[in-house]
Amino acid sequence: MSRWEPDARRRLERASLELFAERGYDTTTVAEIAERAGLTKRTFFRHFADKREVLFGGQEILSGLFTEAIADAPASAAPLEILNDALVAIAPVFALDRLDLVLRRQAIIAAHADLQERELHKAATLKAVMVEGFRARGLSDLAAGVAAELGQLAFRTAFFRWVSAAGREFTDIAAETLADLRTAATQVVR
Amino acid sequence: MSRWEPDARRRLERASLELFAERGYDTTTVAEIAERAGLTKRTFFRHFADKREVLFGGQEILSGLFTEAIADAPASAAPLEILNDALVAIAPVFALDRLDLVLRRQAIIAAHADLQERELHKAATLKAVMVEGFRARGLSDLAAGVAAELGQLAFRTAFFRWVSAAGREFTDIAAETLADLRTAATQVVR
Repeated sequence: MSRWEPDARRRLERASLELFAERGYDTTTVAEIAERAGLTKRTFFRHFADKREVLFGGQEILSGLFTEAIADAPASAAPLEILNDALVAIAPVFALDRLDLVLRRQAIIAAHADLQERELHKAATLKAVMVEGFRARGLSDLAAGVAAELGQLAFRTAFFRWVSAAGREFTDIAAETLADLRTAATQVVR
Repeated sequence: MSRWEPDARRRLERASLELFAERGYDTTTVAEIAERAGLTKRTFFRHFADKREVLFGGQEILSGLFTEAIADAPASAAPLEILNDALVAIAPVFALDRLDLVLRRQAIIAAHADLQERELHKAATLKAVMVEGFRARGLSDLAAGVAAELGQLAFRTAFFRWVSAAGREFTDIAAETLADLRTAATQVVR
């Protein structure tokens, strides 16, 4: 059994998503995941509370990256510029060698109503994190709300374009998405 | 037992929300609701699939009113004007004599995690309805997305202002909210 710990989380994630696809999400056990990853159950539980968190743990990482990007932007930065910085910051989560994992995760969630509800709940958390970040920069409640709604739309759009575009880098897609969003938002708010 | 059917739905809704508050949502039965409303279980099931739908049936009515308002707006209307029309269209749902029902509903949902998930799900449906409506008016996918996000924010903000403002008419609050939203959105999209 490999003891190369830094990679353990990624190996557990890959093993989980393979097994969910092969045997079904409901019937796969943590013991099977650990075995496939060549690790112990104890190691699994050091990284994830349960098998559901394999699917949703990444969203906490995303929320953290958004929070940092919004807090660290220069005082003069406009909200849409800050959203651009945030999408650049999350790009490592959407590295090209993770595309197959991301697609498997989407397929599993699409097949389970309770996981879809959880996904919506996590999306609401991400939005709340953005509202807080923009408020902390001095935006009014409503302006922070608008910035967060646009942020979520930018993220979702860039994400879907990335999974649909065969092998293009997330950072390139993010930049295009932000430019398109600026055009669209200007049309709507006229 | 009264046979005055047009009011049956409202009586069932009021009876349900009273009983949920008095005895708890989980333990209240449809039989008890029907009895409190002075109607039969059969009448209950003509209006609602189950007791959960008493809490969420109104959201379908809202979605329908949003769809109509977006479809019926003049071709020249800008998206924020259309959202203003939509908020005017839903005002009857938030008549002042329904404020106590709305507050009871909020309290019950806030106390149940599964009802909160359902509420998020219904909010996503309302947004999807708005995206479709704006697309059908010729907006790009992204512009329709922006309009729908702003629509949802406008609705949510007007709603929370209405439940917090002691006894002000929803239409007045909606007009103020739209004006504030226009200011906020202009700040964000600069």
